[in-house]
Amino acid sequence: MKKGITLLLALLAFTTLSAQYQPDWNSLDKREIPQWWKDAKFGIFIHWGVYSVPAYAPVNEVDGVYEKYAEHYYNRLLSGNKFFKDFHTKHYGEEFSYADFAPMFKAEYFNPDEWAELFREAGAKYVVLTSKHHDGFCLWPSTHSPRWNSMVTGPHSDLIGELSTSVRNSGLRFGLYYSLLEWAHPLYSKSTIEEWVDTHMIPQMKELVNNYQPEIIFSDGEWDYDSKTLKSEEFLAWLYNESPVKNSVVVNDRWGKETRSRHGGYYTTEYDLVHSQKGIGDKADHPWEESRGIGTSYGYNRFETTKHYLSSKRLIDILIDKVTNGGNFLLNIGPDATGMIPVVMQERLLDIGKWLKVNGDAIYSSQPWRSPNKPKEGNLHFTRKDGNLYIILKKWQKDPIILTGLKSAGKAELLGYKGDLKSTLQQGKLTITLPQLTVDELPCEHAWVIKVTNFAE
Amino acid sequence: MKKGITLLLALLAFTTLSAQYQPDWNSLDKREIPQWWKDAKFGIFIHWGVYSVPAYAPVNEVDGVYEKYAEHYYNRLLSGNKFFKDFHTKHYGEEFSYADFAPMFKAEYFNPDEWAELFREAGAKYVVLTSKHHDGFCLWPSTHSPRWNSMVTGPHSDLIGELSTSVRNSGLRFGLYYSLLEWAHPLYSKSTIEEWVDTHMIPQMKELVNNYQPEIIFSDGEWDYDSKTLKSEEFLAWLYNESPVKNSVVVNDRWGKETRSRHGGYYTTEYDLVHSQKGIGDKADHPWEESRGIGTSYGYNRFETTKHYLSSKRLIDILIDKVTNGGNFLLNIGPDATGMIPVVMQERLLDIGKWLKVNGDAIYSSQPWRSPNKPKEGNLHFTRKDGNLYIILKKWQKDPIILTGLKSAGKAELLGYKGDLKSTLQQGKLTITLPQLTVDELPCEHAWVIKVTNFAE
Amino acid sequence: MKKGITLLLALLAFTTLSAQYQPDWNSLDKREIPQWWKDAKFGIFIHWGVYSVPAYAPVNEVDGVYEKYAEHYYNRLLSGNKFFKDFHTKHYGEEFSYADFAPMFKAEYFNPDEWAELFREAGAKYVVLTSKHHDGFCLWPSTHSPRWNSMVTGPHSDLIGELSTSVRNSGLRFGLYYSLLEWAHPLYSKSTIEEWVDTHMIPQMKELVNNYQPEIIFSDGEWDYDSKTLKSEEFLAWLYNESPVKNSVVVNDRWGKETRSRHGGYYTTEYDLVHSQKGIGDKADHPWEESRGIGTSYGYNRFETTKHYLSSKRLIDILIDKVTNGGNFLLNIGPDATGMIPVVMQERLLDIGKWLKVNGDAIYSSQPWRSPNKPKEGNLHFTRKDGNLYIILKKWQKDPIILTGLKSAGKAELLGYKGDLKSTLQQGKLTITLPQLTVDELPCEHAWVIKVTNFAE
Amino acid sequence: MKKGITLLLALLAFTTLSAQYQPDWNSLDKREIPQWWKDAKFGIFIHWGVYSVPAYAPVNEVDGVYEKYAEHYYNRLLSGNKFFKDFHTKHYGEEFSYADFAPMFKAEYFNPDEWAELFREAGAKYVVLTSKHHDGFCLWPSTHSPRWNSMVTGPHSDLIGELSTSVRNSGLRFGLYYSLLEWAHPLYSKSTIEEWVDTHMIPQMKELVNNYQPEIIFSDGEWDYDSKTLKSEEFLAWLYNESPVKNSVVVNDRWGKETRSRHGGYYTTEYDLVHSQKGIGDKADHPWEESRGIGTSYGYNRFETTKHYLSSKRLIDILIDKVTNGGNFLLNIGPDATGMIPVVMQERLLDIGKWLKVNGDAIYSSQPWRSPNKPKEGNLHFTRKDGNLYIILKKWQKDPIILTGLKSAGKAELLGYKGDLKSTLQQGKLTITLPQLTVDELPCEHAWVIKVTNFAE
Repeated sequence: MKKGITLLLALLAFTTLSAQYQPDWNSLDKREIPQWWKDAKFGIFIHWGVYSVPAYAPVNEVDGVYEKYAEHYYNRLLSGNKFFKDFHTKHYGEEFSYADFAPMFKAEYFNPDEWAELFREAGAKYVVLTSKHHDGFCLWPSTHSPRWNSMVTGPHSDLIGELSTSVRNSGLRFGLYYSLLEWAHPLYSKSTIEEWVDTHMIPQMKELVNNYQPEIIFSDGEWDYDSKTLKSEEFLAWLYNESPVKNSVVVNDRWGKETRSRHGGYYTTEYDLVHSQKGIGDKADHPWEESRGIGTSYGYNRFETTKHYLSSKRLIDILIDKVTNGGNFLLNIGPDATGMIPVVMQERLLDIGKWLKVNGDAIYSSQPWRSPNKPKEGNLHFTRKDGNLYIILKKWQKDPIILTGLKSAGKAELLGYKGDLKSTLQQGKLTITLPQLTVDELPCEHAWVIKVTNFAE
Repeated sequence: MKKGITLLLALLAFTTLSAQYQPDWNSLDKREIPQWWKDAKFGIFIHWGVYSVPAYAPVNEVDGVYEKYAEHYYNRLLSGNKFFKDFHTKHYGEEFSYADFAPMFKAEYFNPDEWAELFREAGAKYVVLTSKHHDGFCLWPSTHSPRWNSMVTGPHSDLIGELSTSVRNSGLRFGLYYSLLEWAHPLYSKSTIEEWVDTHMIPQMKELVNNYQPEIIFSDGEWDYDSKTLKSEEFLAWLYNESPVKNSVVVNDRWGKETRSRHGGYYTTEYDLVHSQKGIGDKADHPWEESRGIGTSYGYNRFETTKHYLSSKRLIDILIDKVTNGGNFLLNIGPDATGMIPVVMQERLLDIGKWLKVNGDAIYSSQPWRSPNKPKEGNLHFTRKDGNLYIILKKWQKDPIILTGLKSAGKAELLGYKGDLKSTLQQGKLTITLPQLTVDELPCEHAWVIKVTNFAE
Repeated sequence: MKKGITLLLALLAFTTLSAQYQPDWNSLDKREIPQWWKDAKFGIFIHWGVYSVPAYAPVNEVDGVYEKYAEHYYNRLLSGNKFFKDFHTKHYGEEFSYADFAPMFKAEYFNPDEWAELFREAGAKYVVLTSKHHDGFCLWPSTHSPRWNSMVTGPHSDLIGELSTSVRNSGLRFGLYYSLLEWAHPLYSKSTIEEWVDTHMIPQMKELVNNYQPEIIFSDGEWDYDSKTLKSEEFLAWLYNESPVKNSVVVNDRWGKETRSRHGGYYTTEYDLVHSQKGIGDKADHPWEESRGIGTSYGYNRFETTKHYLSSKRLIDILIDKVTNGGNFLLNIGPDATGMIPVVMQERLLDIGKWLKVNGDAIYSSQPWRSPNKPKEGNLHFTRKDGNLYIILKKWQKDPIILTGLKSAGKAELLGYKGDLKSTLQQGKLTITLPQLTVDELPCEHAWVIKVTNFAE
Repeated sequence: MKKGITLLLALLAFTTLSAQYQPDWNSLDKREIPQWWKDAKFGIFIHWGVYSVPAYAPVNEVDGVYEKYAEHYYNRLLSGNKFFKDFHTKHYGEEFSYADFAPMFKAEYFNPDEWAELFREAGAKYVVLTSKHHDGFCLWPSTHSPRWNSMVTGPHSDLIGELSTSVRNSGLRFGLYYSLLEWAHPLYSKSTIEEWVDTHMIPQMKELVNNYQPEIIFSDGEWDYDSKTLKSEEFLAWLYNESPVKNSVVVNDRWGKETRSRHGGYYTTEYDLVHSQKGIGDKADHPWEESRGIGTSYGYNRFETTKHYLSSKRLIDILIDKVTNGGNFLLNIGPDATGMIPVVMQERLLDIGKWLKVNGDAIYSSQPWRSPNKPKEGNLHFTRKDGNLYIILKKWQKDPIILTGLKSAGKAELLGYKGDLKSTLQQGKLTITLPQLTVDELPCEHAWVIKVTNFAE
């Protein structure tokens, strides 16, 4: 009889496990973000689609109308933005529509293995591709968008299928961006929003999950309706309980106009805007992720130039800032319509990769420690891991490095440099002095890491 | 009190009227075809769409693979037809898909008023345009095909809206062809056919009816599923009871794989195939309509030439055959991708119009009389109207024309020719002799009509 | 010694023969037009080139600016013609130049054998193709236009080579149109005209003659400079004395601004303009030729329609008018940019061919007789050949046909009709009566020929 | 009378001056290279044309067929190179010719002022644009190539005119590359080479000089014929004696197959090939110039990536090597077909410019001193100017810098760094010690210059 009860309890436990999450935020928010993502720290975001054909936003305009996002081209045409309309008319003519760009998005030189290898070289641990942006164009043969996807026109191939395979072959995790809204889709309107959600949006997301097993879902375009209307809770309950990626999948916080930095998975900031202005996203007590382009746009903007692209130094500094404050960094690239990643973007990624090869120990799987909220103040940034402390310097420091309030500290080393550093611990005050190195003797460029073992506070 | 009852009865009648038809064939088939259509006799069919860009079918192939229909291009590619594939690869390349033709379907020279005027000049009384053929491309901005229609790409205009206005301004009736199936639409498959019908097909047909009030619905592509599956009865009940065209609309017999020549509105034949082979369609006791292209194809085939196009004489003979056997004739034209109607087609239409200007009295609103089922036998064809008999001669006849079994016959005239003909009625035998006319004295070309007044049998 | 003198004389004779013509009009004009051309009567003119891509001239404009010639598109753009500019900007954009049309002139469906067969079926005896029109684009790989010809761009083939072979295989003669001027060629200007003639024009014409042996040279664009400047006399002396076609070649009269209807080979009229207005060209005492399009343009104009195209009847009447007045008729067709001859043009040619199959005996190798200068007056037209008289009726005639002043006349027959006609010759007055025939009994449509044998006056 | 003689002498001098050079190498080679060019040291080469459209050469092929030059695309097609043919067929089809690329060379985003500003920022003193490469396409409206230039097709503008104006407005000198040969031009063959030279090549070069006053003529494609055949001596005599740039123009050594490193103006090396293999070009006793792309190609090759592009450090080292050996460095960029300079190229140029802003004093107007012929050996490189010695270090040096054999040496400074260096001169031995600087304290990246005043040896 006892056995019977045990069996009963086991069954109950199984049932609970297999339907662990209820379709409400209260339950869903209890799910822990899988550890792999917290350890990963650095991912590659890819905005690629029909907007990569015009690849335009008015970066050089000086009269206050500065448009960052080339992927918003279609919307800017629809809303009659003067800069976009003038550009469009001049280069394509008045009779040319956004849909007419689709056959020109040919991706003829797309080489997914080379992309994946580049991302691996960059030190990224995951890749997130726009499966469908606000223009609705699908980078896979979606049943629910049968006439507006990369298989029927343009590339004539399943871009998600191809890239996901290559990325996984390179040992990285693969995720998908998905826009809950679609500009100019007749069903995406107040009167038909339920039909939209039931016959288009949810089926399409499930199709993506079932077909490609993405381990990240970066949803977006959530701002028009609340999460009840969008039935996001039902979707996430399905995703967490039943989907093929229920154990490993990570989602973000964009599931309805009220959810950002409140519900879902990790919180999101972008271009430091939300971060600095609204005070959300980068709370140390919840996993979060900053995303941004190397330049001013996510989608490729052919008019960005050196003054718009961040330098490798600046990107490495941002990575340091985010990670030492507990966040991940999702750095975006915008391939062009032919499927090539502009060389300037490749170089930035390779520079980051070179830096991470020397200093990755301080980044991957680390946790923040005593880092300033305002990254521009102070030169020292910290992470900790496995009893080690990592002191990250964005500038080389001649003067001794001093930390107080420490209980113990073992030897100190400069990552990439042979030999221990001079260091003393006296009354909780750790003093470390860097050696005098010429530029050619430095272990890397841009920033440097001192690792202190046996650390305790 | 009597007044009250009258009111009650009126209300009852109104209710009955407003839901006059039940969603079953038994009820639906009782509806009379509106008289306007029976009187019209001659209509123009228009096949126009993305397939008008390649405009190809292998008319010159001699090895047994002869494809009539250029509008089937997409399907022939999908099924790997050698001729279509070779043509496609040679002229567009392997990387070019059917969807890539859409931006090339520009209709840049389309002039709907000129089209409508041409149809009026041709003597046609109605026009039927392909709203959506089997390729799914919509010639209007359909909510249910938001990324595959003439507004978002190609023409960038509402072709149905534009043409319907012009056609009605010219005094003709306007109808729409609609394909119940769509090649390569993922929902159009056995497992999802109900979703197809409910979320795509029926909503789209209702959208067409509500937006454009077509007075003919020429449905097609009905052969894969029965009418129950396609919910055709429900649709027709709505159409007959509630739609804005409930009083005047005419439909055909293509509503499920079992319905042709059995259910719906008028029966359909095409290219004389069904007519001659299956013995259906042209029954005198039910309204029917023959459709065919001027050449071998409905959609424009740029490779058709004089040997493929029927002569004006042949087309007029067909019109005579169909009308004198109780049918209508829906003659198809295939405009090109630029929106031009090939001149050879214009000329055929104008020739028919010239003939009808002289002889239309024998055609419009007429009824058949004693016509042979096999039109090639015998030179004399007949219609009747308002107590008159019309004897139609496809060849000029030197010998007297003799009819027997008549009770009365008034004077005889040759339409378009001044002066009465010599005629006698003796013992029910009517004898008419045509005058001796040189070619320049004939009232028209191709065929001639003798009208006999006060006719009774 | 006698032998020596004989040799000397022989050498002298040879020299004379080989340099029979001097490079001056006095000598050149003495050359007889080769008999083959005088016998041929009916030829096909082909205007085909880069202008076949836009294929536009404003045929429907009502405000007095009516442009006949679609082949003048480039020039109209250069001179800022409002209609052409508006059309161009609307359909191609402001940044699109005339040269940009060249790759679109692909001739992808060009089938020279089918063309040649059509011309043979039409009853034509020679074909004249525009080797180079005023835009300078060469339909052959010209050494002197290495970057602007059909081999390097567009069709990527030697159109002249291909068509000349097919035409000759069909038993017809082959000739070439050549424009002495080129719009927008920097050398074609007053200050460099000699360089133009020496390094471009003359070398190019010789290249054509040497490579393709054209038996007709239809020069054009002669109006800016006199024949001395253009060195036309030298060229013709070379052509008549030395060229590979010196015996059979025929040229026209367009060799300098003073030469039309004065010098060179046959005189030229077009669209009856010169003919009726200036009184030149159609003089019975010198060979001449009328050219015109089937419609209003030589080069293909996609906007021509039935109201612009002459009917088959009208074209046959023109052929009769020209031939019975001693001229040839060079009927022009304008193939489209894909290499297709519009079906309406094919049909006109086939109708003429059908008529010539019955009545060609009255046309080919005939000579005029008593024809009126003003063809619209009178129904009877005449040719003669081998002792026969041909009476050509453009309208069927019930009344007896009466000719006076004849010395003898044999039997009379209606071409294509079996059996002799009733005819009498009394006191030089010939009376012929046509039989009473229904339209179906007529030997042909459009016009009829009575042949009278043993004719003398 | 004295006055008269002076006048006479002046006239004589003028005459001599105005026809100073005879058309033979003996005389021509005596002309001094104008000083401005010797002082300039660093120029920008631009390869831009129709080949920028495919922008292909097989950089990734591993089987030994490695093609550096994307500007040779046309020639590789003509000669049937497998890689180029496969690429062309795959991406453009078999029916697509090189000429068909011309309308796609649209230069729609070309901004000559931005280009010029970039070149100025890069520290370049002159710019050399390909007026016409071996494909014959002219970047100006050439009278002698009226159908194959940037005005009639593609950009529809005078690219040379536009860029020359902008470059001069930015204070730089402007020069032109010109190819003496043209692939696939029918006149460029043994039998017609004189016609080629007289009617095409020489007139075109004079047209360039007269229209645009280039101060450099970088001729090329000289290898098929000797300079007599090409009449190069006559051209140069005209250029030096009569042309509008006779005083300031600089030419190179490519004027016939025997002239390289023998005759003409400065000698040329490229990609260090001629330099290292043949021992010519870099002789210290004659002005010379090395040219190369930033990557492996001159014309834009879209497939070059970081592994192909030289780093900024490497380019600065090359500049140092060339200048310290007495040469100039003409660094090439390949703009794309839209008129954009790839950002990676912009960045390289800006990096060089940043370095030159600090260290230009050691480069511009300098002369070599004691530099090694083999630049890779040794870290110290030298230039001298105005009594100063410049010691250039490609690597930072901790050990003292020692020079021997000096008579005098003033103070030593590190360019860009405030404060004098420790230095001593003892018995002709100069010893200089660099300060200890962290990476952030360095005056620049990549290489450093010590300037020693009052220097004598």
